[in-house]
Amino acid sequence: MIPRYSRPDMVSVWEPANKFRIWYLIEAHATQAQADLGVVPQQAADAVWMVRDRMEARDIDVAAIDKIEAEVKHDVIAFLTWLARLVGEESRFVHQGMTSSDVLDTTLAVQMKEAGALLLSGSGRLLDALKARAQALKHVPTIGRSHAIHAEPTTFGLKLLGHYAMIQRCHDRLAQAIDEVSTCAISGAVGTFANIDPAVEAHVAAAMGLHVEPHSTQVIPRDRHANFFNACALMASAIENLAVEIRHLQRSEVREAEEFFSAGQKGSSAMPHKRNPVLTENLTGLARYIRAQALPAMENVALWHERDISHSSVERMIAPDVTITLDFALHRLAGVIEKLVVYPEQMMANIEGMGGLVHSQRILLALTQAGMSREDAYRVVQTNAMAVWHEGGQLLDRLLDDTQVVEALGEEALRGFFDLDYHFKHVDTIFRRVFAEP
Amino acid sequence: MIPRYSRPDMVSVWEPANKFRIWYLIEAHATQAQADLGVVPQQAADAVWMVRDRMEARDIDVAAIDKIEAEVKHDVIAFLTWLARLVGEESRFVHQGMTSSDVLDTTLAVQMKEAGALLLSGSGRLLDALKARAQALKHVPTIGRSHAIHAEPTTFGLKLLGHYAMIQRCHDRLAQAIDEVSTCAISGAVGTFANIDPAVEAHVAAAMGLHVEPHSTQVIPRDRHANFFNACALMASAIENLAVEIRHLQRSEVREAEEFFSAGQKGSSAMPHKRNPVLTENLTGLARYIRAQALPAMENVALWHERDISHSSVERMIAPDVTITLDFALHRLAGVIEKLVVYPEQMMANIEGMGGLVHSQRILLALTQAGMSREDAYRVVQTNAMAVWHEGGQLLDRLLDDTQVVEALGEEALRGFFDLDYHFKHVDTIFRRVFAEP
Amino acid sequence: MIPRYSRPDMVSVWEPANKFRIWYLIEAHATQAQADLGVVPQQAADAVWMVRDRMEARDIDVAAIDKIEAEVKHDVIAFLTWLARLVGEESRFVHQGMTSSDVLDTTLAVQMKEAGALLLSGSGRLLDALKARAQALKHVPTIGRSHAIHAEPTTFGLKLLGHYAMIQRCHDRLAQAIDEVSTCAISGAVGTFANIDPAVEAHVAAAMGLHVEPHSTQVIPRDRHANFFNACALMASAIENLAVEIRHLQRSEVREAEEFFSAGQKGSSAMPHKRNPVLTENLTGLARYIRAQALPAMENVALWHERDISHSSVERMIAPDVTITLDFALHRLAGVIEKLVVYPEQMMANIEGMGGLVHSQRILLALTQAGMSREDAYRVVQTNAMAVWHEGGQLLDRLLDDTQVVEALGEEALRGFFDLDYHFKHVDTIFRRVFAEP
Amino acid sequence: MIPRYSRPDMVSVWEPANKFRIWYLIEAHATQAQADLGVVPQQAADAVWMVRDRMEARDIDVAAIDKIEAEVKHDVIAFLTWLARLVGEESRFVHQGMTSSDVLDTTLAVQMKEAGALLLSGSGRLLDALKARAQALKHVPTIGRSHAIHAEPTTFGLKLLGHYAMIQRCHDRLAQAIDEVSTCAISGAVGTFANIDPAVEAHVAAAMGLHVEPHSTQVIPRDRHANFFNACALMASAIENLAVEIRHLQRSEVREAEEFFSAGQKGSSAMPHKRNPVLTENLTGLARYIRAQALPAMENVALWHERDISHSSVERMIAPDVTITLDFALHRLAGVIEKLVVYPEQMMANIEGMGGLVHSQRILLALTQAGMSREDAYRVVQTNAMAVWHEGGQLLDRLLDDTQVVEALGEEALRGFFDLDYHFKHVDTIFRRVFAEP
Repeated sequence: MIPRYSRPDMVSVWEPANKFRIWYLIEAHATQAQADLGVVPQQAADAVWMVRDRMEARDIDVAAIDKIEAEVKHDVIAFLTWLARLVGEESRFVHQGMTSSDVLDTTLAVQMKEAGALLLSGSGRLLDALKARAQALKHVPTIGRSHAIHAEPTTFGLKLLGHYAMIQRCHDRLAQAIDEVSTCAISGAVGTFANIDPAVEAHVAAAMGLHVEPHSTQVIPRDRHANFFNACALMASAIENLAVEIRHLQRSEVREAEEFFSAGQKGSSAMPHKRNPVLTENLTGLARYIRAQALPAMENVALWHERDISHSSVERMIAPDVTITLDFALHRLAGVIEKLVVYPEQMMANIEGMGGLVHSQRILLALTQAGMSREDAYRVVQTNAMAVWHEGGQLLDRLLDDTQVVEALGEEALRGFFDLDYHFKHVDTIFRRVFAEP
Repeated sequence: MIPRYSRPDMVSVWEPANKFRIWYLIEAHATQAQADLGVVPQQAADAVWMVRDRMEARDIDVAAIDKIEAEVKHDVIAFLTWLARLVGEESRFVHQGMTSSDVLDTTLAVQMKEAGALLLSGSGRLLDALKARAQALKHVPTIGRSHAIHAEPTTFGLKLLGHYAMIQRCHDRLAQAIDEVSTCAISGAVGTFANIDPAVEAHVAAAMGLHVEPHSTQVIPRDRHANFFNACALMASAIENLAVEIRHLQRSEVREAEEFFSAGQKGSSAMPHKRNPVLTENLTGLARYIRAQALPAMENVALWHERDISHSSVERMIAPDVTITLDFALHRLAGVIEKLVVYPEQMMANIEGMGGLVHSQRILLALTQAGMSREDAYRVVQTNAMAVWHEGGQLLDRLLDDTQVVEALGEEALRGFFDLDYHFKHVDTIFRRVFAEP
Repeated sequence: MIPRYSRPDMVSVWEPANKFRIWYLIEAHATQAQADLGVVPQQAADAVWMVRDRMEARDIDVAAIDKIEAEVKHDVIAFLTWLARLVGEESRFVHQGMTSSDVLDTTLAVQMKEAGALLLSGSGRLLDALKARAQALKHVPTIGRSHAIHAEPTTFGLKLLGHYAMIQRCHDRLAQAIDEVSTCAISGAVGTFANIDPAVEAHVAAAMGLHVEPHSTQVIPRDRHANFFNACALMASAIENLAVEIRHLQRSEVREAEEFFSAGQKGSSAMPHKRNPVLTENLTGLARYIRAQALPAMENVALWHERDISHSSVERMIAPDVTITLDFALHRLAGVIEKLVVYPEQMMANIEGMGGLVHSQRILLALTQAGMSREDAYRVVQTNAMAVWHEGGQLLDRLLDDTQVVEALGEEALRGFFDLDYHFKHVDTIFRRVFAEP
Repeated sequence: MIPRYSRPDMVSVWEPANKFRIWYLIEAHATQAQADLGVVPQQAADAVWMVRDRMEARDIDVAAIDKIEAEVKHDVIAFLTWLARLVGEESRFVHQGMTSSDVLDTTLAVQMKEAGALLLSGSGRLLDALKARAQALKHVPTIGRSHAIHAEPTTFGLKLLGHYAMIQRCHDRLAQAIDEVSTCAISGAVGTFANIDPAVEAHVAAAMGLHVEPHSTQVIPRDRHANFFNACALMASAIENLAVEIRHLQRSEVREAEEFFSAGQKGSSAMPHKRNPVLTENLTGLARYIRAQALPAMENVALWHERDISHSSVERMIAPDVTITLDFALHRLAGVIEKLVVYPEQMMANIEGMGGLVHSQRILLALTQAGMSREDAYRVVQTNAMAVWHEGGQLLDRLLDDTQVVEALGEEALRGFFDLDYHFKHVDTIFRRVFAEP
């Protein structure tokens, strides 16, 4: 976790105090469930509940717990030992029939659900920004490019709309993955409930807002976690997609849009004129990082027999790092979009800078419809287009000089084929489809 | 694609003839839609439909198309040129207003849907095998292991059930991903429908069994494809999980299960006694391969502007390779499970070989419930357990010699704590949860 | 392997006939070594050598061997059975004391060495092309960009020189990795030479042009192979680096260089004016593919005990695919560079299009050296630079109007700071450093 | 960075104070070089050197620098501003002609070199441990396994020796990669030395113990860094290889070796008898993490034009995380090997537990040499071996009952084929080869 790439809300999900808070709640709810079943005395549960407010407030002596762990070399035992000091003798009924993983894995589920909620909030903000800007810029003409070569006109709103649609899909996949990883397992050493009733699991699950894990071994199966990290990796790839677009638009020769550049900011220690798309470049790198973590997450799936603990060190690193970085990236990108400076005049200048070549397909079609063979039409248009490309000038002028074309289409119609609005007649339709409006 | 890791059905999805068959159908349906709109004459559509049977039968001269492509260096133009030879002059109305990517990307969607159906069939077979074997072996005791160390008893059916549940989740994710990648885009050079009515897209989508892509640029957005490959990678990881389990079970010192070994098979050119888990070792490697392809698939998401073609070479390689390999892997693993040789006696021998240590947690619990502090109980049990571990013998015998224990629990109760059935009382419950039976 | 991304020379390295040729040579040399040691009769070796010419000529009945394998389900036994038909009864002395992996792993080493030689030849061609173009374009001014924003002038030759230097480093790393993977192991079932003398290994190694593997288990350790694939992945990343540069240079707004576009080529089925950088886009995708294979190759390192066979399926896929694709990519890129169309006038136009902003750092320095504080100088230059950026015009004109600047530097000196040659005074030095000339 | 997976020495390499210390030294040496060239006054250099002791002692007000950065949003400018407060007016000559990346990239090179030295020290410790244990256990018989199935005897020393050889190769590759990444670039905004003499770079390089980068753009080319991370990833894979071996050896049914288990340690909160290979399981996970970072490092190679800054965020995360984690892993594994508990009796028991099947290849060979056809010999041995496998008993006893075998070999010779020393005659040879002793 790099402080400069983190937001406090997400950092706090992964802080020891939050982890211990959740451990406490799981143990307390489990003790309550055991009391309900008559397995342990109700006063044991009552004793545990006495410290609830303090635990909820995260008033937890992390250093003391760490110190015990350094001795017993087992984190859950260390916590239970510390808890016993607070709760007193009744604490011996806590954790009964449970195994450490019951607590650890269920806690990770709670943390991933909490982190997931923040991620969805971040992508929600990004979606709001994209939607607002897309609608506001719906009809601003800009050149569409394939292979980074001018193709045909589109609108800036349509560009943003496409990113909205992709982020929305990634948002939905992430929501689904969060739901899938939100399971509770309190099933004992190898998942057989030998020493604990399934009712305890059901009780804790409900209390913690989780689903019951239908089949755990010692651990919750790791395909759920891998699926979560895959969803994060895919969201990161969508972020990269938008970040790369903005970097392209800001390059010196294009200048159709720019990241907002605050007053005191310095672009370069050497070149004072520079305004660099550093936020989106940064996001491109963060996306690479997040994406790569899908691999170790998937390697974690094949644990030995009922569990080995190789997944744990990976998760200790990537669960905070991926969620913190992705949370930061979503908000950074949302900020970029919210404040993105756009230059419609420059967009129009770029369209016109190509001498009308972007209309070539329409001429090609018109010639075909006027009876010319496709091959002939292609050759005629390409010849004139290439002349414009190499020698400059306007395609319209060249076509007006080409008797074959003028004969086929007529001058007036020919001129008419160069209007931009022709390209935008279905923009509203596409917007309706994406925003699922009737 | 490696012939030894492929099945003909899946290979045929990716053969040129199938690709051209789909190209034809898309062009034909699009021409029909254009005719319905009055954009092209109905006889153009009729002319195209004349060769439908031949195309459906994959009676396509691939070499001829390749020859044209070598000249024009454009695959779709090559195909259309070849089609024109069959269809005659009316062919000039084919492909009108469309761009190559309309055909190529929609075709890829059809192929991924076809491939996806085969994958679901493969995972379906694997699920059937796992379910049948899990139910048949539901109550066969076997040792549960964490860290590859004996933990507590479980049943072989429960082991298989866990794999069933994981494969089922991966199956469902894959089904979802297939559905998401099954979209049709016929929207022109930059996705604006400048030269083609959205009705054509809707018509072709319905005819080809696809959804309409709400927002395409020149291409269908690549997060859909990346999501598909992620789902394949996750399924591969689940396959690896089961394959690794079987490899462990077959190792010389464990021998609880074995891959079926046919009569004529030779395990080793040098060591005739060897029976190696080569199928599951092979699957472990195949899983590595499939999993890694998620990365380039996700790197494909960030295309430049309205599209660049960098994704294409990646997909030409991984779309066939991943689906063919995963299809093969699913069927190979299904075969392994269907014919898996299991050795219940050896499972029981392994349980007993540890001197009853697997019952230690139950004793620990009983001592606690009998009033001993958790720390004392832990120490008493660990001391006796360690003696068995190092010097052999049975835990029960040692505990019977430990007056502290006998006093706390009584001899008869103590003996009773060593029965296996205690561990299996919730097996039926877990089965019901996974198979979602009432 | 995709035919369109492959060259015959590299494909032939991985053909079954070449594999069997190498198997034969290893078995024959090993038999000879055993005869030299007196372990087997010399006539056995003689009998084997009788078919050498035929084997060297790859006149091998692959189908017959495959048929035997289908029966015995073991590839090496199948080959030996087939060889026995040719060689006769003496063949029973072949393979004595060896294990299949002795043959398979040493063969893979020979193939990787052969493939490696072709790769080095390909990168050699690319290096030649880069060197020639770099030297020819050594002094052609072009804008240097950071963050895709104009920075300061550089030369096109310097651009290419940087790519030359990177490819050269990757070439050297690859050469080193090839050498490391070129080892021979004939050490028996677990690498102890229990049934075969180390002299056999030494003999075969020398005959096949390999090093002796100092410590094999059943297999050659897989870090050697992973290192090879890492080197390929790094070369692919360097290819991507150059490919991305060309794609940028060819974009409509930049147009400083273009891939060669042959006469008959069609850029787009719809837009006849388009000339797309499809070769370098394609290379970008191929690089993604190659790079990703480093992961499974590294996962192959951790084999179980003295070997498991999980690595094998991975290698069957990636060893041909990576080397064939990288070989193709190197030659494709070499061709792109050899024929790259460059537009020096456009480069100059782009430099000038920024109103002289690229000289801002030099002015900043001059002001500082003239006694202005760094912060003041920065503010002065940035203010004028921003005015040019937003309102157009030339930086020189604005500075001439800024009395603070003119007072500090004098008009004549100020004008002098806008010459380009100032930036190129060390170009020769850098060339000498890279080409290691004195 | 996770505290529990880190060592202070490596953490300190990446602390802000160390970074600023190196920034200072680079700026100071550069100013000195500029003074030597007469570009800046010597008193400027003298003024800068005045604070050298304080900087070397890392007595640096990081918070103050951070505060300035929050305002100017540029890290190097912030540092220079802070430095100016200490150095006074002469500080305006500092950084002259340089660009931020000159400082940042050269600093990263110094840090990677420092981190690299620690890594080599860690792998050195691991190599020492492996060498010592390998030599001490050189002749301890243990079963060699392929496919996790018993194959032929080997020695425990040979096992460790193989790991020694692999780690040694990874050590050498890492050393080479460290050397390659240790370059200094002080070449200005786009690498042309427009505003600074190459002599400054040469001076700083020598002073900081780096090579001169022959061709930089604005940055040092990223293939160098990627190569470094690849070398780390490969070392991690070798670590995983050894970790997996130990995990296998410790499993309940094998128990040939164990991680040292300290007196107070608790293996499980529930199962007191458990001694889990948690250190090597942990290392398996850490290896996954480290390995995956090779991917984003390689994606960093393809920067746009003369540089984009997308690599930076990746490196801020993975440079510390990979080196800190690998450093920790190397020392953890060294500790595991130094204190590894080995059980030679159990190794022998495991060898004998297979009824002598491990000798089958030798019998096969002897039968062949006695004139039996390979196919007949194979069938005879396999039949007897299979009987032992399924029904138990000793292979020797069965073969003594097989008249075909006894006739071919004679009873006495047959018995002799079952001695273990036969397998160990070349152990010394292999040790000599790996330790490169004469």
